Amino acid sequence: MDRIDGRTPEQLRPVTIERGWSKHAEGSVLISFGDTKVFCTASVTEGVPRWRKGSGEGWVTAEYSMLPRSTNTRGDRESVRGKIGGRTHEISRLIGRSLRAVIDYKALGENTIVLDCDVLQADGGTRTAAITGAYVALADAVAWAQGKKLVKSGRKPLTGTVAAVSVGIVDGTPLLDLCYEEDVRAETDMNVVCTGDGRFVEVQGTAEAEPFDRKELNALLDLATAGCEDLATIQRTALEATR
Amino acid sequence: MDRIDGRTPEQLRPVTIERGWSKHAEGSVLISFGDTKVFCTASVTEGVPRWRKGSGEGWVTAEYSMLPRSTNTRGDRESVRGKIGGRTHEISRLIGRSLRAVIDYKALGENTIVLDCDVLQADGGTRTAAITGAYVALADAVAWAQGKKLVKSGRKPLTGTVAAVSVGIVDGTPLLDLCYEEDVRAETDMNVVCTGDGRFVEVQGTAEAEPFDRKELNALLDLATAGCEDLATIQRTALEATR
Amino acid sequence: MDRIDGRTPEQLRPVTIERGWSKHAEGSVLISFGDTKVFCTASVTEGVPRWRKGSGEGWVTAEYSMLPRSTNTRGDRESVRGKIGGRTHEISRLIGRSLRAVIDYKALGENTIVLDCDVLQADGGTRTAAITGAYVALADAVAWAQGKKLVKSGRKPLTGTVAAVSVGIVDGTPLLDLCYEEDVRAETDMNVVCTGDGRFVEVQGTAEAEPFDRKELNALLDLATAGCEDLATIQRTALEATR
Amino acid sequence: MDRIDGRTPEQLRPVTIERGWSKHAEGSVLISFGDTKVFCTASVTEGVPRWRKGSGEGWVTAEYSMLPRSTNTRGDRESVRGKIGGRTHEISRLIGRSLRAVIDYKALGENTIVLDCDVLQADGGTRTAAITGAYVALADAVAWAQGKKLVKSGRKPLTGTVAAVSVGIVDGTPLLDLCYEEDVRAETDMNVVCTGDGRFVEVQGTAEAEPFDRKELNALLDLATAGCEDLATIQRTALEATR
Amino acid sequence: MDRIDGRTPEQLRPVTIERGWSKHAEGSVLISFGDTKVFCTASVTEGVPRWRKGSGEGWVTAEYSMLPRSTNTRGDRESVRGKIGGRTHEISRLIGRSLRAVIDYKALGENTIVLDCDVLQADGGTRTAAITGAYVALADAVAWAQGKKLVKSGRKPLTGTVAAVSVGIVDGTPLLDLCYEEDVRAETDMNVVCTGDGRFVEVQGTAEAEPFDRKELNALLDLATAGCEDLATIQRTALEATR
Amino acid sequence: MDRIDGRTPEQLRPVTIERGWSKHAEGSVLISFGDTKVFCTASVTEGVPRWRKGSGEGWVTAEYSMLPRSTNTRGDRESVRGKIGGRTHEISRLIGRSLRAVIDYKALGENTIVLDCDVLQADGGTRTAAITGAYVALADAVAWAQGKKLVKSGRKPLTGTVAAVSVGIVDGTPLLDLCYEEDVRAETDMNVVCTGDGRFVEVQGTAEAEPFDRKELNALLDLATAGCEDLATIQRTALEATR
Repeated sequence: MDRIDGRTPEQLRPVTIERGWSKHAEGSVLISFGDTKVFCTASVTEGVPRWRKGSGEGWVTAEYSMLPRSTNTRGDRESVRGKIGGRTHEISRLIGRSLRAVIDYKALGENTIVLDCDVLQADGGTRTAAITGAYVALADAVAWAQGKKLVKSGRKPLTGTVAAVSVGIVDGTPLLDLCYEEDVRAETDMNVVCTGDGRFVEVQGTAEAEPFDRKELNALLDLATAGCEDLATIQRTALEATR
Repeated sequence: MDRIDGRTPEQLRPVTIERGWSKHAEGSVLISFGDTKVFCTASVTEGVPRWRKGSGEGWVTAEYSMLPRSTNTRGDRESVRGKIGGRTHEISRLIGRSLRAVIDYKALGENTIVLDCDVLQADGGTRTAAITGAYVALADAVAWAQGKKLVKSGRKPLTGTVAAVSVGIVDGTPLLDLCYEEDVRAETDMNVVCTGDGRFVEVQGTAEAEPFDRKELNALLDLATAGCEDLATIQRTALEATR
Repeated sequence: MDRIDGRTPEQLRPVTIERGWSKHAEGSVLISFGDTKVFCTASVTEGVPRWRKGSGEGWVTAEYSMLPRSTNTRGDRESVRGKIGGRTHEISRLIGRSLRAVIDYKALGENTIVLDCDVLQADGGTRTAAITGAYVALADAVAWAQGKKLVKSGRKPLTGTVAAVSVGIVDGTPLLDLCYEEDVRAETDMNVVCTGDGRFVEVQGTAEAEPFDRKELNALLDLATAGCEDLATIQRTALEATR
Repeated sequence: MDRIDGRTPEQLRPVTIERGWSKHAEGSVLISFGDTKVFCTASVTEGVPRWRKGSGEGWVTAEYSMLPRSTNTRGDRESVRGKIGGRTHEISRLIGRSLRAVIDYKALGENTIVLDCDVLQADGGTRTAAITGAYVALADAVAWAQGKKLVKSGRKPLTGTVAAVSVGIVDGTPLLDLCYEEDVRAETDMNVVCTGDGRFVEVQGTAEAEPFDRKELNALLDLATAGCEDLATIQRTALEATR
Repeated sequence: MDRIDGRTPEQLRPVTIERGWSKHAEGSVLISFGDTKVFCTASVTEGVPRWRKGSGEGWVTAEYSMLPRSTNTRGDRESVRGKIGGRTHEISRLIGRSLRAVIDYKALGENTIVLDCDVLQADGGTRTAAITGAYVALADAVAWAQGKKLVKSGRKPLTGTVAAVSVGIVDGTPLLDLCYEEDVRAETDMNVVCTGDGRFVEVQGTAEAEPFDRKELNALLDLATAGCEDLATIQRTALEATR
Repeated sequence: MDRIDGRTPEQLRPVTIERGWSKHAEGSVLISFGDTKVFCTASVTEGVPRWRKGSGEGWVTAEYSMLPRSTNTRGDRESVRGKIGGRTHEISRLIGRSLRAVIDYKALGENTIVLDCDVLQADGGTRTAAITGAYVALADAVAWAQGKKLVKSGRKPLTGTVAAVSVGIVDGTPLLDLCYEEDVRAETDMNVVCTGDGRFVEVQGTAEAEPFDRKELNALLDLATAGCEDLATIQRTALEATR
């Protein structure tokens, strides 16, 4: 099958990661997966939410949002509507859980890191781009906290790396990293979050049209695992670059 | 491993389905998975939301909620807090998607069915009990609509059956249908929604503590598939009973 | 006059009280007045709201809510609308005041009991069923707190019993315990809350169609007083049963 | 018993009614019951809410609110808190019902009248002053609508007059028209709304401390009926004055 | 040009200031600029908001609101809509800033004064009337606090006086203190807040139709400065009167 | 006086305008005033809000928002808090008014253009950068609408250009285009919006510390007028560039 943008089924879109995009945030990244662009900042504060005080453990959380005109037609602002929609809630929670999977709370100590992932332009895969970029911002923020001696334990707060990618079945063919047009046509849509060592943090598959069988599920998991491996390499390269 | 309640790893809790629990709703079910009790009603109304008018297609949606004291310690009412939490949003959306997977919108015609799933008592697996019970309420509501000639097409609005179960890895062992105590201790937690013919509608796996590998994922999927098959039998038996 | 369901004007609907309906709550009751079913839980927590701290006195409050499909046509959830309606507020406050009328705050000590009254099925008289059921749940919760030594005073936190019933004038005839169909047609509608010794805690009479005179008011009060006496007996019987 | 302000038990506070207090509203009144001052406006608009369209019947509704510093210590604005409290809801509903008791919807035709009752200064009895003042504003608004030929039926939209007063038992003595200090000390508190011909529209009695018996209830009703009669005279006098 | 109400371009409407309009508030004023009537109260509380605690400095803030029928057609209550509109926010902030301009926080000590400005009747210039009246209420409240020894410093908390007026260009002519009809027709609209010694606290000019040039701006500033001077005299006279 | 960043008092920070920053929006600009970066999109839709339908006139409105970590310390999201703050409201309204000053509604026809101004990084002057950038996005959107024949009149919808700049008095010296550090220290702060022909659309001056006199006001207006002239040149250059 020919993909809209000429990719092979198992090929990622061009992925770019620009670090240091904000002068204020302790970690910040502008990530793009093709035309999907997400601005991720990591904000470090000393102390933890009330329910965690005195535990000696840190906390990591995330908030996801789309700018009103990040999409093809303008959407209402959630601040104007006065409430956050279900989709936003769901993705914010997913990003938070994904990053917490590679955090050693004890090692982090009683510090909080908030990841803000704001979609500047959407073309499919915004949540997976957000997770992948947020990890890099998180890594920079953790390094900053270590440099500032906010992290007092001798241990590393980060226990690994994490990246995410979408996969789906379009016209019967399993595809990696769907763009918006492919996403809309997908019979099955799956978001997979993996650690750098190839294990799963989240697997969320949804039959959009037709239920899927075990064989299709396996094909999607194979594609996603390979895609996350590629993303882990791109993350590593970005983090090794001198800023 | 001995489970808290003496079950084998691949055993469901006792599941009961009482139909006709409400005199007002077109379909209604009190379902219990062990001590988890969910009251599911299906409400049929003629017409569809504005964005769907004139399409000739119906709509099915769901709302999930927990009574404040369905849990061990009382939670605030979302109506009092003035907003719906992320978890509630997420589960409501999951239930809606799961049921829509077996609906033929064209066959349903421009009618709307709303599933309300209110948790009266929670002991783990409330979302999977909700989906499993809501399907039965939906089936009764569809039959009611057919009896009232609201469904005008000659086709069946229901294209299959749907049930859901949770699985997880506790102390290294994959277990079916976790109760609350097991759920809290699970390293990995997965909710699986299957059709009656054994295909997947939703697969949502989350590493709560440690990322999981492909082998563990496969073990969980095996357990869940078998569990959903058992639930499909229980649903069928419930629906065949004369009310 | 023949009533819809064959009762005499001064007759209650069949009233049932099932205690221990929740495994989590300190007191719980499923009460039915005919087809009206309300699930009442009493939740005990140590401590009191901030404005009462250090007073040595306890607090009792209540929240009332209707499940969306407890009524003939589905109503919106107040959590989804993002605010509580006036009727809900009004009834929650009424239930709270009614129960506080038989509480000795000093004897209760700095403990809080929250009564949740969720209407599972509505057929008129939901607020009076809620009060009558909530009293039984409250009594169980107080006994639990005494058993747990949370109540430290030697005195009884409960100074009496409380029950409630609706009365109304339908087609010129005063009737006890209106079902929904009667309620809709009532010219005057009154809710009366009495203690077990026959005194009034609340009297709320409203002319729905025609203003009422003193004679009609007296007839309604007579009916209600007798009805509450019957309910007090049913409450006592329920509480004397071994659970 | 000597009352705080030297009144006899069955005596109203000085009541003043100033009509035409707003140049914009179709009816407007500044009413005072002693130091309680409520500004009541009646706003007429052609048309009715959607659920009443095409019925040929009008609608009357009310909104009550207290200015933040109408009380001894400043209260938060409900607009700032973003929600209306239960007490406000309850009183708004009471005022609306009370005025609708003397409205002939058919005679009013498809017009809506909104009564706004804003408490400028509170010293007990704000809701009863609001009802009593709102009736006068309503009467002026109805006359305005008749003058403008908005009321097309030959019948009178107002079927009678309505006034309200509070009564209570303080230190064992039934008292009429409680001021704030008395209200705080009352064992029982009752608000009574009567038509000009001495019938009841609303009777809302609450035991604040001790439940009350039938004899006490009767004494309170006697006081309230006489008080409402006096208020009806004051209303009539105000409405007869040339503005 | 002849003004609607016969004034000359540089003439204020009749301004009246009634002090002591509330028995509860520490300072209270009913101010009118022609048919515009604003009720201003100043509420003193010991202590300051959390972010200011321990600073030794006081705080002054303001809330502005319009009664629903203060205008020609009834507006929705912001409490009912559940949120405060942009205009209300903007004016509340303007009033607060204007009054803080003449407050010596250190001299005030850790006390808070809240100004509530509720528009009872609107006919243009509500924000400028609110500022002018609120200053007088503030002065009374500060005097009250000094009398109660809440102000412990030897210094005066008020460093000057403040008043405000609107100016605008209507049909090419600069006019002082626009009434509603003039305001609607104004090409340019400006609100100016001055201290008693003729300096500016706020200058807010807006081109409603046509941008304005420097010469027009100067003419407006001349008018406004003179108008504020007149208002300062009226304020002084009001404050010198024995209450 | 030496400015923090070495500028002269009457010098703008480096201003850059990148057009076409979004593939979805009809006009889009990333504007920077030094370290202040605002992303402005212009969204065109056919039709106008209900209150304007049938008028033959278009509408232009704006929404301003700051990303949570655009500032030095992270701020809460307004969507999460469930309401928009006063400052946000105020700036959104200012931007909308400023752009409407150069729109010929009749020429635009019944089309709506929404300007979204999202601050990616804040360093003072976010509202003036937003206005200046939004004008360019608006110009591109208008050109797009003309190209698509949405604008049917023969006239130009844009009657001029508009730009904005902040000025202030810091340590007694009037300065142009304050950065955050200067803004915090300013005694007086003014935002000025000018058309390209040097007339005023908005003048908003606020005494932050000390009231200002006419001479200071004049000095600030001189600075601002010159600054806006420079910005108009930069806008023109940006719009003349081929994209």
